Amino acid sequence: MSKKAKLNIPTYDDVLVAHKRIKPYIHHTPILTSEFLNNLTGAELFFKCENFQKAGVFKARGASNAVFGLSDEQAKKGVATHSSGNHGLSLSYAAGKRGIPATVVMPNTAPQAKKDAVSGYGATIVECEPSTSSREAVFAEVMASSGADFIHPYNDPRVIAGQATCAKEIFEELGEFDALVAPIGGGGMISGSCLSLSNISPKTKIYGAEPEQADDAYRSLKAGYIIADDAPVTIADGLKVPLKDLTWHFVSNFVSDILLASEQEIIDAMYLVWQRMKIIVEPSSAITLATILKNKNLFANKRVAVILTGGNVDLKKLPWM
Amino acid sequence: MSKKAKLNIPTYDDVLVAHKRIKPYIHHTPILTSEFLNNLTGAELFFKCENFQKAGVFKARGASNAVFGLSDEQAKKGVATHSSGNHGLSLSYAAGKRGIPATVVMPNTAPQAKKDAVSGYGATIVECEPSTSSREAVFAEVMASSGADFIHPYNDPRVIAGQATCAKEIFEELGEFDALVAPIGGGGMISGSCLSLSNISPKTKIYGAEPEQADDAYRSLKAGYIIADDAPVTIADGLKVPLKDLTWHFVSNFVSDILLASEQEIIDAMYLVWQRMKIIVEPSSAITLATILKNKNLFANKRVAVILTGGNVDLKKLPWM
Repeated sequence: MSKKAKLNIPTYDDVLVAHKRIKPYIHHTPILTSEFLNNLTGAELFFKCENFQKAGVFKARGASNAVFGLSDEQAKKGVATHSSGNHGLSLSYAAGKRGIPATVVMPNTAPQAKKDAVSGYGATIVECEPSTSSREAVFAEVMASSGADFIHPYNDPRVIAGQATCAKEIFEELGEFDALVAPIGGGGMISGSCLSLSNISPKTKIYGAEPEQADDAYRSLKAGYIIADDAPVTIADGLKVPLKDLTWHFVSNFVSDILLASEQEIIDAMYLVWQRMKIIVEPSSAITLATILKNKNLFANKRVAVILTGGNVDLKKLPWM
Repeated sequence: MSKKAKLNIPTYDDVLVAHKRIKPYIHHTPILTSEFLNNLTGAELFFKCENFQKAGVFKARGASNAVFGLSDEQAKKGVATHSSGNHGLSLSYAAGKRGIPATVVMPNTAPQAKKDAVSGYGATIVECEPSTSSREAVFAEVMASSGADFIHPYNDPRVIAGQATCAKEIFEELGEFDALVAPIGGGGMISGSCLSLSNISPKTKIYGAEPEQADDAYRSLKAGYIIADDAPVTIADGLKVPLKDLTWHFVSNFVSDILLASEQEIIDAMYLVWQRMKIIVEPSSAITLATILKNKNLFANKRVAVILTGGNVDLKKLPWM
């Protein structure tokens, strides 16, 4: 059996099950429009506000699907992950909702605010040194002692099926649309979007938006195989991680192109969204608008869904201050 | 004829006409909820997001109703107002949409960003000295030379009928609810809320939220007559103006109580809304949550609509920085 054949690829039926399963635990987020940004880009933009999602990020969808899909027996042993960011927060949220243990391995250098947020949902934090070797060693211990289910931030069919409910909601609200732009980091959200749209709206083109300074998915798509960078540096801190086999399956098969933006373009787009739409988005979300502004020809006169993935930023430390 | 008999009080029929008239020019804004803020207050809160409204503020409703209700003949002569704030912006927006002249008299000390926003909608700015006497003199000249229609920021039946469409939308979406909390400055939004709810949901209690440092409406309600302060100082800069005869009619007849909050409480509530709801509200909006947090007993286990009136803030100058 080849490696590829072993991939556990989620289906659209999994998305239907996921959507029903997670409905009580997630927000059906609104789609907002901005005449100003339509005029500026020449496109008709529909912003899906996952920054209003539970835990402030779309990842609450995938985490909820994974957590609420567990058998009672497995649920008792809990879930675990390593993440100092939005996935750790989302998994803690979902586990808290089900009332099961969650352990999040975080570097001891993580900001106190992030630790407080995870603890606030009732999860246990286990600290490691800020190195991959320490994280892996500590995480292996946690898994061995707890028997917890490891929920990967994106390379997990349950997670991808959960994220896929977002594009499903967009289609249910908008009907046909020409293109979807979503940020691409590990590829969980865009894989979910591919999964839904390839089934319900196959004509819709799907674009990834990625920082120039962390353009591994862009280079992967051009090369035809996964390229992973070691610790890229970008303000879009949700987009530093590489594609993995499952997300590569979706990206390589269904993504039309990956568009890049510079750090300053990301910050400018973020400011524009805050100022004009009155909503708080993190840099990893604002990159979508940045790439649309850079590629106006691609989107002119098109109906374009834009996924604003999250809004978790430090309000006391803004990039334009 | 007594002075009171001459009041031109808008009716609910005016609201129905207004809603139909302005629909193409305003956003039907979403209602957002926050489990965190529900837990914190003990109430079930429904936040009507007028910060997402055109021009970033509910006042686009009233201004659009006034502008689009003009006869063609009057429309040609245009509209005028004096305002360095949200009403000037909203009137400019509405006049721009109809393609008619708008003149906004502003003090020469107004921030460049506000001037740019008004000019951006195509309105003409006429500057005056930052004094009441200069403003009145300059404004009189503008009116005499242009024949423009003066659209008062709140003491105008067309404006109140326009603002009333907001509470109407809330009721259409939520059905019955127990209470509504809206900021109170000149009283335009709360008068509109009174106008709609006294007709379609008379059991709903209506509360005003006002800064301690600009508590003229509170004192007016207790005294039984309008008390106007001269130039109160508060961070909630939309709430400095006094009630006038038309808004006093609604406030004195239909408002259950006016609740106060300190400057720090307003800032804390604003931070909480930004952080937890991922939306940008100005201090004049955040005061609603501040008063609910201070009066938990009043709202415990109640369904409470909260009007977040606007989101026009200087993102480079935040009160918690």
